[in-house]
Amino acid sequence: MNAEIISIGNEILCGNIIDTNANYIIKKLKEINLTVQHISAVGDEEEELVAQLRQAFQRSRIIITTGGLGPTEDDITFQSIAKAFGLKLVKYPEAEEHLIKTLTNISIAIAPSNLKQTFLPEGSHCILNPYGTAPALILEKEGRVVAALPGVPLEMKHLLPEQIIPFLQKKFPNLKQRESKIIRTSGLGESVLNDKIKTFILSHQDLNIGIYATPEDIQIQLNALADTTAEAKTMLDEATKQLKGLLGDYIFGYDQDSLEGVIGDMLREKGLTLAVAESCTGGMLGEMITAVPGSSDYFKGGIISYSGEIKEKLLEVPAILLREFGEVSEPVARAMAEGVRKKCNSSLGIGITGIAGPAGGSPEKPVGLVYIALADDKQTLIQKYQLQRERQIIRLRAARRALNMLRLYLIN
Amino acid sequence: MNAEIISIGNEILCGNIIDTNANYIIKKLKEINLTVQHISAVGDEEEELVAQLRQAFQRSRIIITTGGLGPTEDDITFQSIAKAFGLKLVKYPEAEEHLIKTLTNISIAIAPSNLKQTFLPEGSHCILNPYGTAPALILEKEGRVVAALPGVPLEMKHLLPEQIIPFLQKKFPNLKQRESKIIRTSGLGESVLNDKIKTFILSHQDLNIGIYATPEDIQIQLNALADTTAEAKTMLDEATKQLKGLLGDYIFGYDQDSLEGVIGDMLREKGLTLAVAESCTGGMLGEMITAVPGSSDYFKGGIISYSGEIKEKLLEVPAILLREFGEVSEPVARAMAEGVRKKCNSSLGIGITGIAGPAGGSPEKPVGLVYIALADDKQTLIQKYQLQRERQIIRLRAARRALNMLRLYLIN
Repeated sequence: MNAEIISIGNEILCGNIIDTNANYIIKKLKEINLTVQHISAVGDEEEELVAQLRQAFQRSRIIITTGGLGPTEDDITFQSIAKAFGLKLVKYPEAEEHLIKTLTNISIAIAPSNLKQTFLPEGSHCILNPYGTAPALILEKEGRVVAALPGVPLEMKHLLPEQIIPFLQKKFPNLKQRESKIIRTSGLGESVLNDKIKTFILSHQDLNIGIYATPEDIQIQLNALADTTAEAKTMLDEATKQLKGLLGDYIFGYDQDSLEGVIGDMLREKGLTLAVAESCTGGMLGEMITAVPGSSDYFKGGIISYSGEIKEKLLEVPAILLREFGEVSEPVARAMAEGVRKKCNSSLGIGITGIAGPAGGSPEKPVGLVYIALADDKQTLIQKYQLQRERQIIRLRAARRALNMLRLYLIN
Repeated sequence: MNAEIISIGNEILCGNIIDTNANYIIKKLKEINLTVQHISAVGDEEEELVAQLRQAFQRSRIIITTGGLGPTEDDITFQSIAKAFGLKLVKYPEAEEHLIKTLTNISIAIAPSNLKQTFLPEGSHCILNPYGTAPALILEKEGRVVAALPGVPLEMKHLLPEQIIPFLQKKFPNLKQRESKIIRTSGLGESVLNDKIKTFILSHQDLNIGIYATPEDIQIQLNALADTTAEAKTMLDEATKQLKGLLGDYIFGYDQDSLEGVIGDMLREKGLTLAVAESCTGGMLGEMITAVPGSSDYFKGGIISYSGEIKEKLLEVPAILLREFGEVSEPVARAMAEGVRKKCNSSLGIGITGIAGPAGGSPEKPVGLVYIALADDKQTLIQKYQLQRERQIIRLRAARRALNMLRLYLIN
C-alpha cells in the first residue's frame, strides 16, 4: 500500500522555492500508516506530468499531486490527469458556483481564466476549497486513488487532513498498523553512534531503523509494522528500552521533543532561571531558548556582548582578563557566565565566546575555537571546543553544545 | 541538454528532513545554463534506486545524486550505481588514503564500516572530499554524466561548485547563454507587488519572470536566454532599470544580497554603530545581524530583555512606563531603543517588544502585536505592527521589519 507524491511547478525546478509540501504530506500519511516510496518534482509541462502520472499509476496505489490548479496557462494539472487516464474534461457546476461566490465575496471580477478551474476530469470527486478558488479532486481508478491538491501550502494543509485523509481511511480500512518512534540524541558523532548500536540494529531485523544527523541532533528512527497498533507499540517500547541502556544520557528526548524544550521543562520543574551572555553566537542561543512557548517561565534574557567593550561594560568582565587572555579564552567565558548571572539575577548563567570566522583566527586560536561556561551559585563549569567548517555551522554548533552542556548539568 | 536530480535517503521519505540540496543544485546548474527537468526522492532501497537511476539514464543527459555515501548499511549509492550500469565495485587507493588521513587527523578510530566508502564503481572518477570522509564520484557513460555527491549539505555545497560544475563546463562547452538576476524587495506584500509590476511583466515576454515570497524577502527573478552572455546581460540590465523605476526603495538588493548584509555595508560606510534590545524576538535580530562576516565592524551587541525585570534593570526602562503602558507598548519600545543605545554607547539603538504567542494575547493587545523603535542621537522612530500566524513566523517577521526599518532610515 504505497503512496507517491508529485509536486508540480516550475518554481521548484527553477530553484525558486523548496518543496515543503511533500514533507507535510508524508507526515500526515504516516499518521494513517501509509508510507511514501517516491517523490517527484515536475515542471508545468503537460507531457512531463502525463508521463509521471502514468508511471506513478504503475507503481503506486495512492498518488498525491500538489500544484498546477490555478487559473493561468502554467496550470495544467487537471488537463494532464485527464490526458494521462483517457478522460474528458467536464464542467462541474458546484465548482463554478463556488468560484463565483468566492470571488464576489471579495469583490474581485471573475476573469475568463478562472473558469478553467471549473473543468475536472470526468468521474472525479470535486473537493470544494474554502481556502481558495481552485477545487481539489479525488479520482478513483482501477484500485488507485489520485488526489490533486493546491500547491499553496496553507490551502493544501487544510484540504489534505480535512478531505483526503478521511477519504483514504474509509477506502482502505485494513492497513497494517505502523508505529514510529524517534530517539533524539546529542553529544555523540554519527559514526560513533552507529558503531555503538550496530549490534542492536542487526538483532532487530523486525524493525526498520535509520540514523539521521541534523544540526540540531542525531536521531534514531524506529519503525515497527504489526497487525495491531498495540503490538507495534510493544515492539517500539522494547527497542527503546534497549537503546536507553546502550546510550544513556546521550538520549535527550523522543519524537517531537527538542533540546530546548526538554531543558525548559527541567528548568521549570526545578524552579531555576537562566540568563545568557553571547559573543560569537550573537543572540542565537537566546533565540533558540525563546522559540519554546512559555520560556518566559525560566528565561530572564541576556546580553549579546559582541564587542570587548560590551563584555567589559555590561557584563563587568575585568579589563585585565580581556587584555591578558583575550576575548576568546577560558577566564573570559567564565567571567561572562558569572557576570550575566549576577546582572540578570538568575540561578544559572551561560557564557559563549569563540571565533566564528572566516576571519579572526590565528595559529594559537584558530577559527572554530569556542569556550562555553555554565555558572551556578557554587561553581562555574567550562568546556572548550574546536569546531569545524563555516561561520553559521560553528555558531549553530556552539549554541547546541551550550544547550547540551546545560541539559547534562540539570540531569546530574 | 537536461539534468535530473535524485535525492537519496529515507529521512526525506519519512518526512524527517526537507530536501534543500536539490534546490541548491538547481541554482548552481542554472548558472551554467543547465536546466533541471526532474527531481526524485528515493529511499535507501537498492532496488528503487537502481530503477530510478536507469530511468534517469533514459531521459536525462546529466544525473546528479545526493546522499547514501556514508559508512552505514543504509548507504547504498555506490553499489546501486554499479548495479544499475553493470559495473564492478573496485577499491580506489586514493580514497582509502584520504579516509585514513582524515580520521587520523581528528583522532577518530577507523571503523570497519568506513572502508565501504573506498569502493567505487569501476571507471568512475573518484572525487576526494576534504570536507568529510565519503568521496564523491563522476561517471561518464554513453554520453551521460552521473555525479554522486554527499547528502550532507555543507559537503555537497563545496563539492558541486568546486568539482562537478567545472567538469560539466569542460565537457559541454556550447550551451546557449542564460543569465539570471534576482531583485530583492522588502516592505511590499506579494499581491501588491504583483499588481505594481503586472504591466512590466506583460511587456517583457522575452524574459522569464517569477515572483517568489520567502520569509526573508519577496524576490523577482528575471531569466534571459540569448546567443551571447553580453546580450542576455543587456536584457537584464534594461529590465532591472525599469523595475527600479517602478519599485524604488522597496528594492534592497540584487542576487545574493541580504537585508542584513546591505544594512551592514551602509552602517560601515557611514561609520555608524548599532545595538539591539530584544524582547519577543529573544536574540533573533542579533543573530541575523551577526550572521554577516565582519559585522563586528558596526554591531556592538545588545540586551535580550525577555522579562520586565531585565527591561527595568539592564535597559533602565522606567518602572512607571512598564506599569502604566505594559511591556508591549510604544513608550516601552522607545525606552528600550534609547536605553540600549545609551548602555552600549552606539550611534543607533533598536527596540523590539511584542506578543509572539500563542499565549499572552488579549482583546486590546492581541497575539502578533509588535512595536519596533529605532533611536538615534536626535529622535526615536516607532512602528507598530499587527502580525499574523504562529510564534516563529511572528518573531521572524518582527525581526525582518526591524531590519527594513533600519534600512529605510539609513537610506534617507
